[in-house]
Amino acid sequence: MKHNSEHFFCRKQHNASNRLLLLPEDESDRRLDRLRHSMAALGIHAGLVSGNASKFYLTGRVFVGWILVTADAVTYYVRRPVELEGDRIVYVRKPEEIDFSCLGSGCLGLELETMSYSSVERLEVASGIKNPGNLSSALRSARSVKTETEIAQIARSGEIQEDVYRRIPGLYRAGMSDIELQIEIERLSRMSGCLGQFRISGDSMELFMGNVLAGDNADTPTPYDFAMGGAGADPSLPVGADGTVITGGMTVMVDVNGNYTGYMTDMTRVYKVGNIAPLAEKAHRCSIDILRMLEKQGIPGAKASDMHAAAEKIVNDYGLHNYFMGHRQHAAFIGHGVGIEINEAPVIAPRSRDVLEAGNVIALEPKFVIPGTGAVGVENTYVVTSDGLKCLTNAPEEIIELI
Amino acid sequence: MKHNSEHFFCRKQHNASNRLLLLPEDESDRRLDRLRHSMAALGIHAGLVSGNASKFYLTGRVFVGWILVTADAVTYYVRRPVELEGDRIVYVRKPEEIDFSCLGSGCLGLELETMSYSSVERLEVASGIKNPGNLSSALRSARSVKTETEIAQIARSGEIQEDVYRRIPGLYRAGMSDIELQIEIERLSRMSGCLGQFRISGDSMELFMGNVLAGDNADTPTPYDFAMGGAGADPSLPVGADGTVITGGMTVMVDVNGNYTGYMTDMTRVYKVGNIAPLAEKAHRCSIDILRMLEKQGIPGAKASDMHAAAEKIVNDYGLHNYFMGHRQHAAFIGHGVGIEINEAPVIAPRSRDVLEAGNVIALEPKFVIPGTGAVGVENTYVVTSDGLKCLTNAPEEIIELI
Repeated sequence: MKHNSEHFFCRKQHNASNRLLLLPEDESDRRLDRLRHSMAALGIHAGLVSGNASKFYLTGRVFVGWILVTADAVTYYVRRPVELEGDRIVYVRKPEEIDFSCLGSGCLGLELETMSYSSVERLEVASGIKNPGNLSSALRSARSVKTETEIAQIARSGEIQEDVYRRIPGLYRAGMSDIELQIEIERLSRMSGCLGQFRISGDSMELFMGNVLAGDNADTPTPYDFAMGGAGADPSLPVGADGTVITGGMTVMVDVNGNYTGYMTDMTRVYKVGNIAPLAEKAHRCSIDILRMLEKQGIPGAKASDMHAAAEKIVNDYGLHNYFMGHRQHAAFIGHGVGIEINEAPVIAPRSRDVLEAGNVIALEPKFVIPGTGAVGVENTYVVTSDGLKCLTNAPEEIIELI
Repeated sequence: MKHNSEHFFCRKQHNASNRLLLLPEDESDRRLDRLRHSMAALGIHAGLVSGNASKFYLTGRVFVGWILVTADAVTYYVRRPVELEGDRIVYVRKPEEIDFSCLGSGCLGLELETMSYSSVERLEVASGIKNPGNLSSALRSARSVKTETEIAQIARSGEIQEDVYRRIPGLYRAGMSDIELQIEIERLSRMSGCLGQFRISGDSMELFMGNVLAGDNADTPTPYDFAMGGAGADPSLPVGADGTVITGGMTVMVDVNGNYTGYMTDMTRVYKVGNIAPLAEKAHRCSIDILRMLEKQGIPGAKASDMHAAAEKIVNDYGLHNYFMGHRQHAAFIGHGVGIEINEAPVIAPRSRDVLEAGNVIALEPKFVIPGTGAVGVENTYVVTSDGLKCLTNAPEEIIELI
């Protein structure tokens, strides 16, 4: 690695700016225009952006407040922090101070899929508007096609994450448990600049810094809608490492937080100690075969459901259907959009209606759980281009010996 | 410390149980009865519990699904994980499969303050019921008074967190930045059993593993509703450590994740290198004076607003008003309930209507920001008893030399 990421991250490099808008004006305009286009398609005349991820998308920073976007204007209503500077900022203490007069009889869009019912009710009263439009849908669509600036930030996260994954074998010591190894990976990730925060849209999924699965723990069903499971260390957070001591013949799947820039990559590699069952080696080759195939198939216009079906065909040809995307419990998707949050559009699943567009960034994770051995399979993050999928998480894909 | 927390946490100690109900039956009944009492006071005839924190409260585990609670029955509707066992479990794929016939013309309570608007709309259609009651309010009230079992879990988190804080000076090396020190504290916490997940109710606040503030970074306003600020390492997560190198004359305030059992303690201690300004020493003594006073005042029946006013009186007597709960930006509370989430009831704030009850668990954090030095003050977690506040985070309170 050329960069000294530890030094870069852990020492102050900048003076915190008081500018609200941390994006260049043209980049901000580009994102606003994407949102306006999506709003227009849904018949939304004004959108009130409220979520942290969406505000970060439009401004380059998180603040507490709202952004009111219309076809020809944008206003930043800020509650906190104090002292932000820039154009079109209005400081308010409560949503009742937002000026909705621009709206007339038009449709107000709100983030209905993430805003609480109580917050929406309050805004309905404040704005005098009923039947809000689904701004969540417009934002998901706008954010699903990344700008060049966004792709550069995701690619930068990928470069750092590649380096972290290459250094994982050096963290292993004989006799370690999965949790002990995970803690060393967490430390290395953080020292390399990982911000820690793992943004997931919605409130039903929880994960701390990712998932390290050793041996048969990979076969423990999780409640959460992740591709893989694991019992976790406590029933209050039932996913991932459970204290299994890593021993010979076992795989260790590492799928950890790649948020190094506010934008994340999603990446999985598999490690092992000694020889593992031939069935597990075969399933891992199948995963790589699926990725090579989807990398070509994944051009603009490709249907997500067709991609999932093509992957399943390879799995069936290998005779591995019982182990694909889990064994005791199966996940219903093999890929998902990634960016500011880990679960963006498009979704690569059997019943998905999504169609790939140039500039989508997706993670593909065809994985298997082999009883008696553990989880295998590779996950990479890709940007969709006219030539197919371009990989942003380049590191060796074979199963790597921990010692 | 007597316990070997590292071994306890990092090695598998148990077989994951397939029982849905991980609480003893009488403990589960006790919590259901608390909720039913709160529901009755709000005129709610049936409550559909949907949040992960609330499901953990009622069962001892997180699952994806819903719990339907009526005056004389409870049903667990489970989507995931597969294979859970026990009484009154119904596996469903979607909320439309929930049987609301028990409700009649009664009021259905939903978690309106955390459920998304879209989810509530869908349930209104599924249940045929309009005007849902505010089950969030009933749950907040029920959960604000902890059972003996809950208090034991919080106390256990406190014991481990005390040990971690005592070992912080041993992690410091000259020339470290705040982020580098925080990463070592994170590792020590995790090796000692910290689960990592930092549960905050609502979606506007974000924090990763807590807040380490060195020097003047403590005076940088944050958007989030925490007691203290900090620029953070990136504008996508603008709170906490920013890479400031720790040098002489500076304080380092440590306020990190105490979730060791699914229940957390909240605890702050201050460290320093060399001598700091007398004003900062004075403000730290003021914080300890406030805690000693509130520990006596905090008996069942005490008004939260009176407690805040009594703290402010001491601050004014010290002449420290300009620095109390921040300097460039001021927080509006000095304490809050803590348990499964970091922001539970009651809230100790000027306009709070909360009144202390025996069994409340609260964190009190009278803090100051002294320009040129940094943040000072102590935070402890307490259980409310008839004798006043009993401290669950016992460790030396004076400002501790890092070397």
